[in-house]
Amino acid sequence: MKEFDLTTLGSTMLCLSTEVGVPLMGSDHLRVDIAGSESNLGIALAGLGKRVAWLSKVARTPLGERIVSRIRAGGVDVSRVAWSREGRNELMWVEAGMGENRTNVVYDRAGAAIESIRIEDVDLATVEASEYFHFSGITPALSGSCRDTLLEVIKRARRTGVKVSCDVNYRSKLWTPDQAQAVLSEMIADLDLLFLGEGDLRTLWGRNGEAIEELRALQQEFRIEKVILTRGREGAAAYFGDSVMHEHAFAGEVVSPIGAGDAFAAGVLASLLDGEADECLKRGCAMAALARESRSDYVLSGAERLAHKMLPDSGKQISR
Amino acid sequence: MKEFDLTTLGSTMLCLSTEVGVPLMGSDHLRVDIAGSESNLGIALAGLGKRVAWLSKVARTPLGERIVSRIRAGGVDVSRVAWSREGRNELMWVEAGMGENRTNVVYDRAGAAIESIRIEDVDLATVEASEYFHFSGITPALSGSCRDTLLEVIKRARRTGVKVSCDVNYRSKLWTPDQAQAVLSEMIADLDLLFLGEGDLRTLWGRNGEAIEELRALQQEFRIEKVILTRGREGAAAYFGDSVMHEHAFAGEVVSPIGAGDAFAAGVLASLLDGEADECLKRGCAMAALARESRSDYVLSGAERLAHKMLPDSGKQISR
Amino acid sequence: MKEFDLTTLGSTMLCLSTEVGVPLMGSDHLRVDIAGSESNLGIALAGLGKRVAWLSKVARTPLGERIVSRIRAGGVDVSRVAWSREGRNELMWVEAGMGENRTNVVYDRAGAAIESIRIEDVDLATVEASEYFHFSGITPALSGSCRDTLLEVIKRARRTGVKVSCDVNYRSKLWTPDQAQAVLSEMIADLDLLFLGEGDLRTLWGRNGEAIEELRALQQEFRIEKVILTRGREGAAAYFGDSVMHEHAFAGEVVSPIGAGDAFAAGVLASLLDGEADECLKRGCAMAALARESRSDYVLSGAERLAHKMLPDSGKQISR
Amino acid sequence: MKEFDLTTLGSTMLCLSTEVGVPLMGSDHLRVDIAGSESNLGIALAGLGKRVAWLSKVARTPLGERIVSRIRAGGVDVSRVAWSREGRNELMWVEAGMGENRTNVVYDRAGAAIESIRIEDVDLATVEASEYFHFSGITPALSGSCRDTLLEVIKRARRTGVKVSCDVNYRSKLWTPDQAQAVLSEMIADLDLLFLGEGDLRTLWGRNGEAIEELRALQQEFRIEKVILTRGREGAAAYFGDSVMHEHAFAGEVVSPIGAGDAFAAGVLASLLDGEADECLKRGCAMAALARESRSDYVLSGAERLAHKMLPDSGKQISR
Amino acid sequence: MKEFDLTTLGSTMLCLSTEVGVPLMGSDHLRVDIAGSESNLGIALAGLGKRVAWLSKVARTPLGERIVSRIRAGGVDVSRVAWSREGRNELMWVEAGMGENRTNVVYDRAGAAIESIRIEDVDLATVEASEYFHFSGITPALSGSCRDTLLEVIKRARRTGVKVSCDVNYRSKLWTPDQAQAVLSEMIADLDLLFLGEGDLRTLWGRNGEAIEELRALQQEFRIEKVILTRGREGAAAYFGDSVMHEHAFAGEVVSPIGAGDAFAAGVLASLLDGEADECLKRGCAMAALARESRSDYVLSGAERLAHKMLPDSGKQISR
Amino acid sequence: MKEFDLTTLGSTMLCLSTEVGVPLMGSDHLRVDIAGSESNLGIALAGLGKRVAWLSKVARTPLGERIVSRIRAGGVDVSRVAWSREGRNELMWVEAGMGENRTNVVYDRAGAAIESIRIEDVDLATVEASEYFHFSGITPALSGSCRDTLLEVIKRARRTGVKVSCDVNYRSKLWTPDQAQAVLSEMIADLDLLFLGEGDLRTLWGRNGEAIEELRALQQEFRIEKVILTRGREGAAAYFGDSVMHEHAFAGEVVSPIGAGDAFAAGVLASLLDGEADECLKRGCAMAALARESRSDYVLSGAERLAHKMLPDSGKQISR
Repeated sequence: MKEFDLTTLGSTMLCLSTEVGVPLMGSDHLRVDIAGSESNLGIALAGLGKRVAWLSKVARTPLGERIVSRIRAGGVDVSRVAWSREGRNELMWVEAGMGENRTNVVYDRAGAAIESIRIEDVDLATVEASEYFHFSGITPALSGSCRDTLLEVIKRARRTGVKVSCDVNYRSKLWTPDQAQAVLSEMIADLDLLFLGEGDLRTLWGRNGEAIEELRALQQEFRIEKVILTRGREGAAAYFGDSVMHEHAFAGEVVSPIGAGDAFAAGVLASLLDGEADECLKRGCAMAALARESRSDYVLSGAERLAHKMLPDSGKQISR
Repeated sequence: MKEFDLTTLGSTMLCLSTEVGVPLMGSDHLRVDIAGSESNLGIALAGLGKRVAWLSKVARTPLGERIVSRIRAGGVDVSRVAWSREGRNELMWVEAGMGENRTNVVYDRAGAAIESIRIEDVDLATVEASEYFHFSGITPALSGSCRDTLLEVIKRARRTGVKVSCDVNYRSKLWTPDQAQAVLSEMIADLDLLFLGEGDLRTLWGRNGEAIEELRALQQEFRIEKVILTRGREGAAAYFGDSVMHEHAFAGEVVSPIGAGDAFAAGVLASLLDGEADECLKRGCAMAALARESRSDYVLSGAERLAHKMLPDSGKQISR
Repeated sequence: MKEFDLTTLGSTMLCLSTEVGVPLMGSDHLRVDIAGSESNLGIALAGLGKRVAWLSKVARTPLGERIVSRIRAGGVDVSRVAWSREGRNELMWVEAGMGENRTNVVYDRAGAAIESIRIEDVDLATVEASEYFHFSGITPALSGSCRDTLLEVIKRARRTGVKVSCDVNYRSKLWTPDQAQAVLSEMIADLDLLFLGEGDLRTLWGRNGEAIEELRALQQEFRIEKVILTRGREGAAAYFGDSVMHEHAFAGEVVSPIGAGDAFAAGVLASLLDGEADECLKRGCAMAALARESRSDYVLSGAERLAHKMLPDSGKQISR
Repeated sequence: MKEFDLTTLGSTMLCLSTEVGVPLMGSDHLRVDIAGSESNLGIALAGLGKRVAWLSKVARTPLGERIVSRIRAGGVDVSRVAWSREGRNELMWVEAGMGENRTNVVYDRAGAAIESIRIEDVDLATVEASEYFHFSGITPALSGSCRDTLLEVIKRARRTGVKVSCDVNYRSKLWTPDQAQAVLSEMIADLDLLFLGEGDLRTLWGRNGEAIEELRALQQEFRIEKVILTRGREGAAAYFGDSVMHEHAFAGEVVSPIGAGDAFAAGVLASLLDGEADECLKRGCAMAALARESRSDYVLSGAERLAHKMLPDSGKQISR
Repeated sequence: MKEFDLTTLGSTMLCLSTEVGVPLMGSDHLRVDIAGSESNLGIALAGLGKRVAWLSKVARTPLGERIVSRIRAGGVDVSRVAWSREGRNELMWVEAGMGENRTNVVYDRAGAAIESIRIEDVDLATVEASEYFHFSGITPALSGSCRDTLLEVIKRARRTGVKVSCDVNYRSKLWTPDQAQAVLSEMIADLDLLFLGEGDLRTLWGRNGEAIEELRALQQEFRIEKVILTRGREGAAAYFGDSVMHEHAFAGEVVSPIGAGDAFAAGVLASLLDGEADECLKRGCAMAALARESRSDYVLSGAERLAHKMLPDSGKQISR
Repeated sequence: MKEFDLTTLGSTMLCLSTEVGVPLMGSDHLRVDIAGSESNLGIALAGLGKRVAWLSKVARTPLGERIVSRIRAGGVDVSRVAWSREGRNELMWVEAGMGENRTNVVYDRAGAAIESIRIEDVDLATVEASEYFHFSGITPALSGSCRDTLLEVIKRARRTGVKVSCDVNYRSKLWTPDQAQAVLSEMIADLDLLFLGEGDLRTLWGRNGEAIEELRALQQEFRIEKVILTRGREGAAAYFGDSVMHEHAFAGEVVSPIGAGDAFAAGVLASLLDGEADECLKRGCAMAALARESRSDYVLSGAERLAHKMLPDSGKQISR
């Protein structure tokens, strides 16, 4: 058995959010948390009992230590993080909306230590000691160094038999669709596992037809073993090889919509690691629901909660 | 006129709850409150202008004093509580869900002072000086002493002409359906008033038929004057002697679902004490709605709120 | 160009509100904010880039300074406020309901400095230096001096070519419908712009027929250039001269319903000041939605938010 | 044995205070508590195990119910309070200073229900059923009705053999020294027990000589059985009949200086009720120290804390 | 009379601070405020009744709007601020120590909009319409553009007869003593008013002799009309032309030490503007004490507080 | 090099504390943290860069996961903890005093999972892979199983060449001096390192003479290599073999006194591990000061803070 079930590499921001319905202009106290697609996934996966490592380049400030400590608290191995004396840590300011109302995110990313990451900053032994290497489409958008380094890590993973997984996660505030399409098309070719949202299919690859068919076409174009499409409140669909699967989203009120996609991916990956591919969309959708019901962007204590969520009578409101 | 409209006996926990959507794992601040089916009912009833006494056995610690002080603040007579130098006070940890989402309750009851309650700890003069004695099906589940003591109090109440009321409140984390059925069947025989939920009818007494008919059968089997069935969002039904009654639940968003049943019972009992049996289900449903709209498990300032709730135009959102 | 786009005169309260679902009886911490129909409108309008002045008479206490400072923070000119060494400042206590649940408002207005306002306390030069003078139907209900002073300001505004706008805002806790009808009928005659709610049309002027027709009749009876009817969740309608307009309300969850009408009026006035009358109902409805989504009674940072709200795809939940 | 050890009559304010070092101008959240010299004393005394009743006239609003509920929570009988449909409740705004720094108090008392109190509002049977009747010099400063009513209650108490106690508590924001001297001189004549501060001795009665001698002279002038002088950080002195007593203040850091005098009086009264006059100054000083160490104006759980404070080794910082 | 008493130019950070004694690593909620030497001075001066304008270059983000809104709330004219679509806003993270314990400040300044300020961004008409132009030695340390622009503004002010004031405020995290000495020596030559701390005298200009003599020498070397030396808890000293002045610091517990120097300068400048130079050190020291007693870095409501602080008996702890 | 610098075994409580000066009776919100002598030491040591493992038996509840997650966040290896399906987790309720005022601790330990710990629950391989094994005198007081298990671990550590360290930490609420003396005398014989307070020397071993001499005698009686005496505000003394050492306590205001001894021990152990025995008392005293300045019972980010504390000019209040 390898040392880790999954290693991921990315950037995690300190996240400062207002109370629901209060803009930054009118707020005297902020809630402090962390936010990062890869660490969200890592914490959720560790909460499901998997062995996860998180790689990154973090500025050595109290803010950076806060970020890393929170990921460590979530049960993720952070001992291979590259600490930097240069650069800042990324911040994310959130004006939280109620339920389905708009949540406004203000990024403050400029000058982050991760922008200057090089392959020397990455502990490749950790990557090679993992079943999966996972990345998101956010990282290559942060800088040229990020893009080059990530590409090299992906290649190395593939060369050493590590399965590679990607969540597209297109961010319009970071790059244009054309830029994203060019870079990500190179990165996702021949992958083992790809997550993408319905909008990304259209925006990046111009696939405006019926979604399931377009997903199949994308899978074939890029020769990807497993492709999974997330469709928000409508659930998810997948092609694993030639078989298609569908799953409905779970009901529930939204506390915070951020992080649902990362939790979904964690649920899917946990199933695949357990050799239970048939159940993976359902577990993904259950995890996404837990993320939406949660104030944080990541799901804590996922194993017990996930088990309860997947019970037939999980609708009972009070568990006592 | 007797000194008290109602005396109740039970255990009240200190309740520590997270912010909505935040698990205990991720919470640095907890809201402190109290929770106990009988004190919830007592506070709600006192808020409707009734004279209520609460009996219990409480460990003499700052936590116990906090619990009793909060009940006293609610206008309930607590001067007959038995204070104990042994044992702990019960705790309840709540991971609060948003609206209809799951609220997870973690009990920390072991070693509570109430477990060793004996008949000498109960001020029977207070019971006898009351119109009603009320108990819940939670208390006999706490220990053998609790069960024996409660049974003796019920007998004494009946012998001295005090009306006896019970809310079944089956708690699956405390005992099995078989245990509960055996004990409660003895306790509810020949009662004046019985509250039970639809699930309890099925789980404890295996009455899986049409609910209203099963309620009637239960009433007859145990020779109970008034039986009231609560059906969650669908409202309530009752048999008072041979007459059947129905009432719809009130609409409204859920702030916290805990305590709705206790508030319902308080509304019903207030009506009965006022000699307005016809209105009792409606008042009960209105009180249940107030409890669901409230963060606390009990309803404060009920009289003014109840009056407003029962107005035809109570839907107006802002009262100004 | 005049110095101000709009000057308004009114009273602003210090507002103390509980957490959602917690009554004043059970609350140990209160959120402090301000609330006043005219300052709500002023702050929202300033946030849309307009030049606004707020006139009032305020008691010189730390509470009064808090109120004025908050309005100033919102970008409204408060330098012409009359400070008083006599009298108190008004308070408003709010027991906040969740979403559509009841929000209970307790006023503590007696003895306020504004009650003794006289025309000498009003900086008429500011009024005359404005495109619009705006008032609400709350101010004349506060005292005889308020009524007399306001009437004189309205007259002066009209005499010097300042457009006059009124939001009826009937408050049943301050005066009877008959009193309000008598006073307001005098004040609204020959106005340039009138906002009123569907209920006010019926309660004050007994116009119980089909709402749009009754609005037209009211417009003609009082010879008002533009009349706008707000219909809560159903949107708004208007007669501008002889043309009728309709607009649907925007969807969205309610964080706090207070202040929606004031934000609506700000949206309409901003449109009119921009010479874009056709869009004014839509902007008003968008602003009302922003107010309902906001914890405060007024809308901060309105320009960016309004622009986003009016986009066709504004439904996207997270803006990132 | 009489029903109550002590009955007191006075006004209690809702108290809203900022965080330490934050002015009202800069505060978005306020802590809610209650403050009133007589209820401070009553709660402290009840916490020491005495039976106490509090009389007052309170406006029937959620704020008034909050005030009374908090006093009830402290174990004081509030069932004889006169509820009023007219008038407001008094407020007190506190800008809290750190330790010895200035704490600024802003009163908002105008129009309070208590201002119109009449003898019919006072449950004289409660007064007569008490060992002591206690009042402060604040109450007669509130209105002519307050003064007249209080005077009548004092007379009735004396006539029926109830011991009468007074704490002078001169408040310069309520009346002048001349007014206070005239009214209080009438009220304190022939009392059983009088508390006054060193400043009051000088300001009201012009006694600028050596304090202990002046205290003695005052005692003789007004024929008072026991007079007690509080001297802030220097402790207290007393003449009980012809014997003089002294006690040093306890050391300790100041959390909030408000309420120390009321706690002192409670400690003294508890000793006298226990027939332990010799220890009364020491208990008073210990209670004053507990009040200064406490955020609230009143001392909760006094019995255990007082016992610990009076131990020789109470200086040990952590009790574990 | 000129339009403004004082105009200042500088950078203001959003300041995020932990609770006392809690490091950033362990904090889940942060208090949001603003911090900037020049705006601290401006707000304090406006609170003393002076007309103040603040110039800066601010990134147009919700954080920038928050900063500017808070300064505006303090009564300072911010209408001439240059808004930038490029760059970030500066942040300051504070781990607050108790009283005299260490307070750790973490700056996050890189990439701020102000770094690119040019003379075109400065409203010189505002500078010229002021009695004083004030700057601090922090601004020229931020970037070359800041240094060049500030130098040009100083020259323009001097040329048009505006008095110029400087507070040296050396920050070792921004530049070396040699760099600071070179730049500031050019800026302070021939000034009207100079504030500097005892450490700056030694660190920047190597004047290690007796402080008052060195102050005099500095004054003569740079031909400065008025030089003022701040000496922390020991007070302040000054040379105004040839006369020397001394003042002791005020006693009081420290809530937060940040901002004392800025408040001191505001007190001095207010005195000079009032033509009361003799009292200026005393007012400065009183204002410094108010800043130390305050959680915020700036003093709100200064006029009333300052008046109270300067009373002979201001030691009385509770003002009631 | 061994895998761990130090392994420790003990029980960590969830700690719930009020705001300063607020008793549990009057508190509606509690701060959640963890507290345990061994984990305090472990977190502090990890923060100084050492590799630490923490062993315990923890009930598998959300509270237990919270405790372990917080220790993991502090950089301590918790992967060998024994999870239990039986028993509770220990709680500690804190009524926080200001500075030197009394802090009252209420333990709620009964029925804890750790009470049933057996040698099978302890990962002895971890102990053997460590330079030091550390325990406190609290653990053997918890139950007979705790005592027996700990004794066996100590023996095993000694047998396999692991250095053993003990902090006496007598808790009078857990056992009597006689009980403690008997058990601990067996445990400390032949140890490598012993920490004890001045009071423990007297209370447990009746050594009432001059402290340094008594320390020496104790060292010789039990044949301990290094003994260290902590003397609160007076500092510390030690005998290492035959050499005696002394160190003064650091000045500073007290935020919370709890945990100072654990931080002291961490500072000493870090020095010893670094081979810098001469500096160990000074580092210990510096760490103790950091603990007293901190709200939490443990010191986070110790390396940077410790370095600053030990600088000669560390008195500078603001680090900027």
